[in-house]
Amino acid sequence: MLRVDLNCDMGESFGAYKMGNDEDILNYVTSANIACGFHAGDPSTMKKTVNLALEKGVGIGAHPGFNDVVGFGRRNIAMTPEEVYDLVVYQIGALNGFVKASGATLQHVKPHGALYNMAARDRNLAKAIAKAVYDVDSTLVLFGLSGGELILAGEQAGLKTASEVFSDRTYQVTGELTSRTEANALIEDDNQAVEQVVRMIKEQKVQATTGVDVAIKADTICIHGDGAHALTFAKQINETLKAEGIELTGIGK
Amino acid sequence: MLRVDLNCDMGESFGAYKMGNDEDILNYVTSANIACGFHAGDPSTMKKTVNLALEKGVGIGAHPGFNDVVGFGRRNIAMTPEEVYDLVVYQIGALNGFVKASGATLQHVKPHGALYNMAARDRNLAKAIAKAVYDVDSTLVLFGLSGGELILAGEQAGLKTASEVFSDRTYQVTGELTSRTEANALIEDDNQAVEQVVRMIKEQKVQATTGVDVAIKADTICIHGDGAHALTFAKQINETLKAEGIELTGIGK
Amino acid sequence: MLRVDLNCDMGESFGAYKMGNDEDILNYVTSANIACGFHAGDPSTMKKTVNLALEKGVGIGAHPGFNDVVGFGRRNIAMTPEEVYDLVVYQIGALNGFVKASGATLQHVKPHGALYNMAARDRNLAKAIAKAVYDVDSTLVLFGLSGGELILAGEQAGLKTASEVFSDRTYQVTGELTSRTEANALIEDDNQAVEQVVRMIKEQKVQATTGVDVAIKADTICIHGDGAHALTFAKQINETLKAEGIELTGIGK
Amino acid sequence: MLRVDLNCDMGESFGAYKMGNDEDILNYVTSANIACGFHAGDPSTMKKTVNLALEKGVGIGAHPGFNDVVGFGRRNIAMTPEEVYDLVVYQIGALNGFVKASGATLQHVKPHGALYNMAARDRNLAKAIAKAVYDVDSTLVLFGLSGGELILAGEQAGLKTASEVFSDRTYQVTGELTSRTEANALIEDDNQAVEQVVRMIKEQKVQATTGVDVAIKADTICIHGDGAHALTFAKQINETLKAEGIELTGIGK
Repeated sequence: MLRVDLNCDMGESFGAYKMGNDEDILNYVTSANIACGFHAGDPSTMKKTVNLALEKGVGIGAHPGFNDVVGFGRRNIAMTPEEVYDLVVYQIGALNGFVKASGATLQHVKPHGALYNMAARDRNLAKAIAKAVYDVDSTLVLFGLSGGELILAGEQAGLKTASEVFSDRTYQVTGELTSRTEANALIEDDNQAVEQVVRMIKEQKVQATTGVDVAIKADTICIHGDGAHALTFAKQINETLKAEGIELTGIGK
Repeated sequence: MLRVDLNCDMGESFGAYKMGNDEDILNYVTSANIACGFHAGDPSTMKKTVNLALEKGVGIGAHPGFNDVVGFGRRNIAMTPEEVYDLVVYQIGALNGFVKASGATLQHVKPHGALYNMAARDRNLAKAIAKAVYDVDSTLVLFGLSGGELILAGEQAGLKTASEVFSDRTYQVTGELTSRTEANALIEDDNQAVEQVVRMIKEQKVQATTGVDVAIKADTICIHGDGAHALTFAKQINETLKAEGIELTGIGK
Repeated sequence: MLRVDLNCDMGESFGAYKMGNDEDILNYVTSANIACGFHAGDPSTMKKTVNLALEKGVGIGAHPGFNDVVGFGRRNIAMTPEEVYDLVVYQIGALNGFVKASGATLQHVKPHGALYNMAARDRNLAKAIAKAVYDVDSTLVLFGLSGGELILAGEQAGLKTASEVFSDRTYQVTGELTSRTEANALIEDDNQAVEQVVRMIKEQKVQATTGVDVAIKADTICIHGDGAHALTFAKQINETLKAEGIELTGIGK
Repeated sequence: MLRVDLNCDMGESFGAYKMGNDEDILNYVTSANIACGFHAGDPSTMKKTVNLALEKGVGIGAHPGFNDVVGFGRRNIAMTPEEVYDLVVYQIGALNGFVKASGATLQHVKPHGALYNMAARDRNLAKAIAKAVYDVDSTLVLFGLSGGELILAGEQAGLKTASEVFSDRTYQVTGELTSRTEANALIEDDNQAVEQVVRMIKEQKVQATTGVDVAIKADTICIHGDGAHALTFAKQINETLKAEGIELTGIGK
């Protein structure tokens, strides 16, 4: 039977600032990427989000990012691979404190924002992240862009990996995402987005912007958690995948 | 045979800012309290300090503090017990990331500065910290002011505790430290400081500023790590204790 | 003719985190207290908010707070008066950078949250804040709790002050606000809140929770800016005051 | 008469962390670049450093950097020009708070570390910084790498500029500094460093690493403030320049 993981970034509130509909979105996903305090999230939000995911039986992942709350971790920061290793160990450890305190188990690690994007392209950064994950706990699953350097580095480090695809983004013939600076980067139509995902899972192909089909591996699908639309789309993709006979299963299972 | 632990705050450098003589001090102590990034320490410093302590066979402890680098964690911050619980879980977890990545084992937790002092007096704060430590790992040893609320809360939570005494501070008849705002708070003379410590271990007594003897429990002695004098004093107290037939042993052993 | 200032905290967004309806609320108030980056606000939000206030002809004030975004500046932090002086000079200066860059003029300073509350009671803190304001620009108006230490300190420092009252809070017979920990701290009914304000302006009296009338000075009224209700209430109080023949005028005019 | 400005980065302590010999170095320089709290410096350090510079009659400058204390502002951060504008306005404003509170006058602005280097090459970033400086106070002098984009942008914005040269760095035939990653980036010999500076001032030339002479404009010389050697070199360069008949004058005079 075909199976796929559905993941969403979570725990991105910060003190008095609220973001996302974590409690509702958790009803439709199988993996939660929980912010670790560097680009979003504070200790109290982390605890609360870990406990929500645990209650709903959703796989718990660390979502480390650059140390930049004002930029929400979306700005590239030129850190050395060794500094990035330390950054990632720290954040996985911090989230794991709450996971252990709740008697749960950490399932995966997915870098956030600029760190995620840089790790998809930069081999040394990718290796540093993979090594950090492996050194903290070699049973963790590493999430990365399908076809990117992070997945490769994770495999070489001996980690289980999850190749991630995006429902609402278009792809280049190279298998890379179309840059957000391009006009056709986003798929605005929900039905089209769901169709792209179903095909990526069933046929392991995606149609690039040039019209050519490109091979792609889809272990986990990223959906967004913010805004009213996020919830509707989460429900739709969840239900469509099930109707298509695709099992939604946490990657760690 | 009499035995005692000798502990020192460590890993308090911060990026380009250097503090302490960690590498040298580690030759004379048995437990290292490593800052966790909130009042001092950054991820790279934490990794380096964990590795140094591991090499020297010194017990590794988390040293969580208030989120206040500019104030070095010495300013009281009015947080709720639940927020303090979260603060402590986060920081123990973060340090434990490096401990696990190095294949070591976390031994103890000692709160820093204002958090330490507040936890010695405030029962609810003390309970929150003890619960945080217990929930993350019930085998950790909790360090607190000898006779203070934190030790009591640790015992009630089912944790092993280490009652801490200070070599270079004078005591009140209540068993509390003389406030640093008082003229006679500090013992400037090294020989006098060492004598006070030896007596606290051998006789479980300390002479209060009024001249009266007060009962005190000395499981671990705090020494300071900054400045050239710190190293000399660490060596002196280490050698004197051994000469007095007192074994220096990490509290976790 | 009776006149009063209507002020609201603003510019409390932080990077990707949005808070408040600044653009709408600015239609109903005469003074804007703009967060300066320590408890809320980031440089880009500050610039935007200064420009919005300038467009709407609303008086621009600095709203300095403790350095604690996670706690939104609502936690007491034990800083020395000298440190508080520095904290306030820094934040007034930072906001004034944007005010100067926009060709505007800074009108007032109102401390935020815990700093505001502590300054209403602690004479040394109040003096430090008043001196900071005076030293940066002696023509600034200092906002503080009506009857509190900050107003007194401002007057003694030679500053123009604005005694602030709250529409939606009940008062003690001492003239202090009822603590938020008390059940009857808040006035939930909008009409009652507006009536209290009108009486404070017209009769310079407020009925304390004991039923006794207390003298009170109302130069400026604080309204809240967050939530859908905030806008409705801002409109109501603005219109009622005008209907009562009370002129709404920026305190600096 | 030939004249030149001698500048040094200052006020880079941070809370309990001390850096630099500001008080001594101030005896030998004519301009102080004071950190503004984002890459180094805290409000209390800023006040203290402004007052020291004022006492010694040294020109006071703002030294804005990226928001990255752990990285000491030396890591490139990908911010938009508009965000950089806001970053710079904020920090100039904050320092100017202390300058105004001390009754002094702000003389110049010199970006720090990665921001300085990026602004020397990136025209849009350079324009944003120049506009920020101009908008806050059009009489400020803008310091930038001799021959770099920031100097050009400053001139185009209508600012007075100061072309900066380095005594202890080698130059490329393009007029750029040799990257620190190259073996021959630094001039270790003090006499050679001083000679290079004297020639840059007297002949407006510097010998590139290829042996070819390159034209260079030297309005201000950067010296470093940290370490025991810094003080010795500051004294030497100060005395040699005077002996060579070159007047040391603050750029603002």
